[in-house]
Amino acid sequence: MAMPSVEKITQYLKDGERVDQLRQEGIGIIQHPEVFAFSMDAVLLAYFAKPPRQQRAKLVDLCAGNGAVAFLLRHKVIAPITLVEIQDRLADMAKRTIALNGVEDRYQVINCDALDVLEFIKADSVDYLTCNPPYFTSVQQQKTHHLKSHQLARHESTATFDDFARVISRLLKTRGKAAIVHRPERLTELLSTLGKYQLEPKRLQLIYPKVGKEANGVLIEVMHLGSANGLHVLPPIIVHEIDDSYTPLMKELLGVSS
Amino acid sequence: MAMPSVEKITQYLKDGERVDQLRQEGIGIIQHPEVFAFSMDAVLLAYFAKPPRQQRAKLVDLCAGNGAVAFLLRHKVIAPITLVEIQDRLADMAKRTIALNGVEDRYQVINCDALDVLEFIKADSVDYLTCNPPYFTSVQQQKTHHLKSHQLARHESTATFDDFARVISRLLKTRGKAAIVHRPERLTELLSTLGKYQLEPKRLQLIYPKVGKEANGVLIEVMHLGSANGLHVLPPIIVHEIDDSYTPLMKELLGVSS
Repeated sequence: MAMPSVEKITQYLKDGERVDQLRQEGIGIIQHPEVFAFSMDAVLLAYFAKPPRQQRAKLVDLCAGNGAVAFLLRHKVIAPITLVEIQDRLADMAKRTIALNGVEDRYQVINCDALDVLEFIKADSVDYLTCNPPYFTSVQQQKTHHLKSHQLARHESTATFDDFARVISRLLKTRGKAAIVHRPERLTELLSTLGKYQLEPKRLQLIYPKVGKEANGVLIEVMHLGSANGLHVLPPIIVHEIDDSYTPLMKELLGVSS
Repeated sequence: MAMPSVEKITQYLKDGERVDQLRQEGIGIIQHPEVFAFSMDAVLLAYFAKPPRQQRAKLVDLCAGNGAVAFLLRHKVIAPITLVEIQDRLADMAKRTIALNGVEDRYQVINCDALDVLEFIKADSVDYLTCNPPYFTSVQQQKTHHLKSHQLARHESTATFDDFARVISRLLKTRGKAAIVHRPERLTELLSTLGKYQLEPKRLQLIYPKVGKEANGVLIEVMHLGSANGLHVLPPIIVHEIDDSYTPLMKELLGVSS
């Protein structure tokens, strides 16, 4: 699909916003410097996720932000993806990105609290779900900076990981799957909380910022009501080489030429 | 310390046994092809462990086998290490390795079931413990081969991981630590079982057999009654390069010249 023209772009933008191109996906995504831009974690979550390609698959992106994960999944799926985002401003940006790119048949946005999503999406109906939830507990919130939008996107202000796991468990069909990105320092809690809601970890992959550094991200795929003890720990993802350049995998994912 | 002479060695060996040199540690270790030889996992557990160097530290190696982990820890510690091994034959080999190398002041062997170890070592007394337990559940035991010694060393015939975690929790002082090597496919169960016994994971490191392959080992350090949510996931350990040669780290650990 061709990129939208400059004239078309400006008509969809509000003050201060810009459009970043996801070249491989053929999507121009609306961003704003004051709200949470999509991160490396979104890119890696979309890379890690293995949604089914069936036309009738029910797909959800929870904590969708401006839609980056869902847009990055574009070529992996045929069925439409439902984005769920609590923040009005981010949900509005996602909606305008959809209109700008003319992909209304592929995406819909529900602007609601993830905890209320069962009012809009039926329980036991979802085949695959992606989720990039807030990483920091409200106890850790002291260190936060002040922009409200960043706060909601990064901190568990309105919902804890336990809340998200409960909702994910309700949404997923039996043997439905979810791919989640989170922080490795909370791995013990994450796995035990997922287990509590019958979300059995099946694939796990760690993200390291650089060779020789500790992991700063973890990708987990769970199966609802899956059998225990079949976890596959995939090869490590390393973002930067020793000299700070991107590793070959990251260059490929980010569409950066070598 | 000089290696024991051939004459000295043969006097300590039983039929079919051989002595492998742990060169960096200056220890000749008695092995037998029919019983469980120490593995790469023992080498990596000793590398991963961070026992305290205090003279009065109480150190234990549980599921000690022929003593490889404890002998590999030799230069990391000053205090003696108590080896606990259920199999008579392996415990006897460990005892003769100690005599052969004249390190009776550094090591003692208790030949008992790990589950009975509290009859020999006081509860709440241990500062640091290493454990390379059997990896496979008894359900998985169908696939086993027939040598009894291998079976005990590799399968949870006499004790489950839950049993080991309970014993480790009883042995360790408050804030005492244990380093454990196990299989990543059981990671969810391992972390939840450790949590059940107030053993809080603090460091975790994955072992990959080769670049691009799934992990086949996991090293976990826990703290007894430690605070939650401080897990550090260390850089991946990769054993072999693409061309099957050892990686630089492994060459160093195994004393193989490049």
